[in-house]
Amino acid sequence: MAGNTFGSIFKLTTFGESHGVAIGGVLDGCPSGITLDLEAVQKELNRRKPGQSAIVTQRKEPDTVEFYSGVFEGKTTGTPIGFAIHNTNQKSKDYSHIKDSYRPSHADYVYDQKYGFRDYRGGGRSSARETASRVVAGAIAKQFLSDIKINAFVSQVGTLKLDKPYQELDFAQIESNPVRCPDPALAVKMEDYIKEIRKEGDTIGGVITCVAQNVPIGLGEPVFDKLHAELGKAMLSINAVKGFEYGSGFEGVEMKGSAHNDQFKSDGTTKTNYSGGIQGGISNGMDIYFNVAFKPVATLIQPYETIDKEGNKVQTQGKGRHDPCVVPRAVPIVEAMTALVLADYTLLNRTIQRNG
Amino acid sequence: MAGNTFGSIFKLTTFGESHGVAIGGVLDGCPSGITLDLEAVQKELNRRKPGQSAIVTQRKEPDTVEFYSGVFEGKTTGTPIGFAIHNTNQKSKDYSHIKDSYRPSHADYVYDQKYGFRDYRGGGRSSARETASRVVAGAIAKQFLSDIKINAFVSQVGTLKLDKPYQELDFAQIESNPVRCPDPALAVKMEDYIKEIRKEGDTIGGVITCVAQNVPIGLGEPVFDKLHAELGKAMLSINAVKGFEYGSGFEGVEMKGSAHNDQFKSDGTTKTNYSGGIQGGISNGMDIYFNVAFKPVATLIQPYETIDKEGNKVQTQGKGRHDPCVVPRAVPIVEAMTALVLADYTLLNRTIQRNG
Amino acid sequence: MAGNTFGSIFKLTTFGESHGVAIGGVLDGCPSGITLDLEAVQKELNRRKPGQSAIVTQRKEPDTVEFYSGVFEGKTTGTPIGFAIHNTNQKSKDYSHIKDSYRPSHADYVYDQKYGFRDYRGGGRSSARETASRVVAGAIAKQFLSDIKINAFVSQVGTLKLDKPYQELDFAQIESNPVRCPDPALAVKMEDYIKEIRKEGDTIGGVITCVAQNVPIGLGEPVFDKLHAELGKAMLSINAVKGFEYGSGFEGVEMKGSAHNDQFKSDGTTKTNYSGGIQGGISNGMDIYFNVAFKPVATLIQPYETIDKEGNKVQTQGKGRHDPCVVPRAVPIVEAMTALVLADYTLLNRTIQRNG
Amino acid sequence: MAGNTFGSIFKLTTFGESHGVAIGGVLDGCPSGITLDLEAVQKELNRRKPGQSAIVTQRKEPDTVEFYSGVFEGKTTGTPIGFAIHNTNQKSKDYSHIKDSYRPSHADYVYDQKYGFRDYRGGGRSSARETASRVVAGAIAKQFLSDIKINAFVSQVGTLKLDKPYQELDFAQIESNPVRCPDPALAVKMEDYIKEIRKEGDTIGGVITCVAQNVPIGLGEPVFDKLHAELGKAMLSINAVKGFEYGSGFEGVEMKGSAHNDQFKSDGTTKTNYSGGIQGGISNGMDIYFNVAFKPVATLIQPYETIDKEGNKVQTQGKGRHDPCVVPRAVPIVEAMTALVLADYTLLNRTIQRNG
Repeated sequence: MAGNTFGSIFKLTTFGESHGVAIGGVLDGCPSGITLDLEAVQKELNRRKPGQSAIVTQRKEPDTVEFYSGVFEGKTTGTPIGFAIHNTNQKSKDYSHIKDSYRPSHADYVYDQKYGFRDYRGGGRSSARETASRVVAGAIAKQFLSDIKINAFVSQVGTLKLDKPYQELDFAQIESNPVRCPDPALAVKMEDYIKEIRKEGDTIGGVITCVAQNVPIGLGEPVFDKLHAELGKAMLSINAVKGFEYGSGFEGVEMKGSAHNDQFKSDGTTKTNYSGGIQGGISNGMDIYFNVAFKPVATLIQPYETIDKEGNKVQTQGKGRHDPCVVPRAVPIVEAMTALVLADYTLLNRTIQRNG
Repeated sequence: MAGNTFGSIFKLTTFGESHGVAIGGVLDGCPSGITLDLEAVQKELNRRKPGQSAIVTQRKEPDTVEFYSGVFEGKTTGTPIGFAIHNTNQKSKDYSHIKDSYRPSHADYVYDQKYGFRDYRGGGRSSARETASRVVAGAIAKQFLSDIKINAFVSQVGTLKLDKPYQELDFAQIESNPVRCPDPALAVKMEDYIKEIRKEGDTIGGVITCVAQNVPIGLGEPVFDKLHAELGKAMLSINAVKGFEYGSGFEGVEMKGSAHNDQFKSDGTTKTNYSGGIQGGISNGMDIYFNVAFKPVATLIQPYETIDKEGNKVQTQGKGRHDPCVVPRAVPIVEAMTALVLADYTLLNRTIQRNG
Repeated sequence: MAGNTFGSIFKLTTFGESHGVAIGGVLDGCPSGITLDLEAVQKELNRRKPGQSAIVTQRKEPDTVEFYSGVFEGKTTGTPIGFAIHNTNQKSKDYSHIKDSYRPSHADYVYDQKYGFRDYRGGGRSSARETASRVVAGAIAKQFLSDIKINAFVSQVGTLKLDKPYQELDFAQIESNPVRCPDPALAVKMEDYIKEIRKEGDTIGGVITCVAQNVPIGLGEPVFDKLHAELGKAMLSINAVKGFEYGSGFEGVEMKGSAHNDQFKSDGTTKTNYSGGIQGGISNGMDIYFNVAFKPVATLIQPYETIDKEGNKVQTQGKGRHDPCVVPRAVPIVEAMTALVLADYTLLNRTIQRNG
Repeated sequence: MAGNTFGSIFKLTTFGESHGVAIGGVLDGCPSGITLDLEAVQKELNRRKPGQSAIVTQRKEPDTVEFYSGVFEGKTTGTPIGFAIHNTNQKSKDYSHIKDSYRPSHADYVYDQKYGFRDYRGGGRSSARETASRVVAGAIAKQFLSDIKINAFVSQVGTLKLDKPYQELDFAQIESNPVRCPDPALAVKMEDYIKEIRKEGDTIGGVITCVAQNVPIGLGEPVFDKLHAELGKAMLSINAVKGFEYGSGFEGVEMKGSAHNDQFKSDGTTKTNYSGGIQGGISNGMDIYFNVAFKPVATLIQPYETIDKEGNKVQTQGKGRHDPCVVPRAVPIVEAMTALVLADYTLLNRTIQRNG
């Protein structure tokens, strides 16, 4: 399996299956001398943890991160930061409903086809549990990027949509409700809707919006590695993501250039920001904002029909404690991946600083 | 500048500014022994060329590709394929309106901020002219991937939208009209609309849909380098792209899991394909399909106000021969980038083929 | 810090300082379905362990590797193999002689200059302890490469030199003595010499020769990533290595081409093997052999004078339990790095297999 | 074929066969704003050119480099620098002696085995002609590294050896003789010896020593990508190189640690420099020096016996205008590769500069 590394300089490599001994990672390339608040890292991890509220999975996983290297006397040394989160909740469950049959819209079938073999327990490497390692590294990236403010929040659940521009929202409200929607009234509706969906044993999709503020001008590489291309890849690498748009996005398609162009003010900022803070792949100092679409979770707590390895029809039943809607817990993951991209491009930008 | 290389094994590196001596690239990692039809490569390049029809820019650029290496007696040798396209249309124009002022929603401002300096003639490296090199490499990738069929087409211009699923379209119609929309009646409307926009000196956005068929099961790396994540990055690296969605995309957000899950048939294919041919980042053998949103081109043939390097307001006027809508010429670029991703993942997949 | 990853597809990333919580690594890209003998991995690690004999450091480190992921029911799954070796011997020693002064010919000074800060305990990341992680990954690589035989051995200690060609040696003798020299008579002399050096509180250099047999034809990339160039880099990345030569090496310089050229037999093998099994960067099926020069260990158990951070002269005294000669314990490291290179190039070679 | 790219940030990709249309490359990652003297680049290329003197090959190749991009108004723009050198001397020679038979100690046989196919004209991609592209990029790297002085020279031809330390040499003498040996008396002997060898239709090996002075402290990554490991790989990637040693090298093996350790002066420099300017993989500000061993050229102008594709014995005869000794022309290549490594590590070092 390739592709367990993200970033070119500020570089995260992750390992681990949902029901193995541990998951974890190595964060390489973090500059030396940064004072690290390790409790703040654990706090970020707790935002992603199962069992936080009534609308997420009720699994109990303490998700405690242990650091193995790279930090000395409270500061980064510049050496790789190794860390692990031990899996403590792997009961010797009955996996027979997964082992020999393929859950629809899961990776079971393609794993078997690709590798000829898989760790069938709870999704193995394809489980979203892997994203816990990203949150650890992203939390470190946030501390490195201390001047940049990254706020992600839920802007849609099913057909329930936030209809205000992000400028009118109070980001301080995001953590005030279990949905992580900064509009408290809408959050209540979303929460009720998710509970209803859960009762049906069903699931529903959602959208997360992310805003990065105070990003310096100049991050991004203008051709293949445009800043928004890497952000898009980062988001699309999160489990269940189906789409990404930034700035005017898919709606911008219907606009004319004369309306869409962002006019300059004399200080180099722009009057509008349809560009979403990025021009030609390079940050222009305006807010970067984008939307990430998540499909409904594939695991249903309903009876369903599927096939086994021989292609025979089998009747089975979703079990376990799954999320009826993935977006509330995905908010810290979106922030983490954003932070990883911005940290990497910050370091990369140092290499091309103009001479003289 | 980093990021002029795309792919990890089937790997393209491009160079060149719009008004320099030449643009071109090096395609490394192409397996040996592939019979290459170099005229077919030139034909693909011609699909992207300016001046093909009344609705695209009327610049005259012969865009003839010269191959320097890597092909011997009609076949690839496995060595890097170097190629160049000389720029023949760089008149000693008056660039004063660009040199000292910043065009809105272009990369002029951020280039100066990032590099302290830029080749201001016609956009330099940020010009979409760079994508010609991608089309050359993509055409070679297509020949390598001979069993896979890749068809991109225009599915939206402004508010004019194709409302049929791609299965009902005749891909043979794509090249029958200058818009590259496979619905001939809609194509006429789109063409008329683009002409109207052009008369206004304005521009309009659009959407390209791409379908890859006959993709073998198993392409894609399950964590950071998911197949759709790399496709997303590839598309977002094309100039003017603002969004990417695959399978059910942003609409899938509103579906319940019970409706969205793709039920298996006994042969491992699925009854529906909301997944868009990719499960857990790995191709599952079904059609891969996705949408790419393009903003309206920023260059208008209208007077406009902007700022110069000192932040003073300046009145200026768009000049030259620009595209009123970028999507018709972007169709071969979308196909090329798709082919490059699939070729790279095909080679990568060989490295992880299961042992024994 | 960059450069904690080795390999392009069969790829090892390591972390850890000598006196931190743990060292370890992530091995990504190992194909699925390989039956892994984890005890054999531990055995390799034991070959590198301190305290094996009277001529190596007497530190006690159990060096037990724990595997966290990537192995299921005794076989590799194709997912990354995460592992750690906890540091159990980090006493709260007095490091004051290292903390504020710079040991000659160690990395202390340059670390402080480069990072502004370092984990001064026992060398931190620059300690050869890091190589334990390489041995773990190399042992897995050996199992993947089961047909290839890799044997390294000590061929020189100080001026005591093996004067037989490797073809006349019995590799089964390598592990029969603590020096790991396959000539038992010479081994005794080397052992005595090392003991003498140790008594003086001094150290001595040595050479390791490595032979890889049964390597298939075709491994290696002909330009920058020649097989011997990557082997050379791998060896030079081991602590204390000062030189690398393969085939005829430095002695070949004095030969004429007419004597040096390896004449073909009709089966494609060659009568002589001055080429060292590699032509134009590609393995030719003959034995690959090379020499690696190790300097004398810099840590002496003698009083010495050096400078502190302010440049003041300080008198100090080497302490601890160090190796008087590094080569006996470096033998498994040389083998491990050789295996990592050959595994990576084996996978890489699959991507360029000729079509049709 | 992989491995046509060298460097991680200051990154060169080369293409081209000896008898194709052109060779060339793309240099990506060069910072913007550097004033480039393109004549100085051509001058470096001329140092490598055939036909310079009586002791090198008498082929006539103008080797004129054309720049395609990345330079504007005399300065680098930060965009990739594309360049090509057209092959002008490819006569429609008779290659039948190479096409169907395998020259001993050349890459012919392994190319056929690996790729199933090769451009047999004059060595194709395995020809040392590829190194011309390296010299172009290295000459740009030298200009970027203007403070660092890199001098390579011939220190041995056959058994004729320079026996002075480099500190006693006058580098200004290097270009004063066709051998590029800074000791004029020895240079005459070497020249006479090479002429004699050439008369016999034979060839001889040699050693190049390279000294890099004024290198700042801190270049190099301490684990796998140690500065000397990358220098070693760079040198070993040059055609015909069989060995690399730096600082005390293979001779240091025989020294005791007490003699080998470099004692500090109060300013952080060291009294001796057995370390060769590198500690723990990081430059320490002292001179970096190393030796590179070149085998005798495999092409002899003598009759010889070899095999054809079917394994039949064939009598053939070396033809053409080849170098009797490769080291005089390899001097600028060694310097170029050194400059590329130092430029890359200079940029990499910027990414890990300590914070605050």
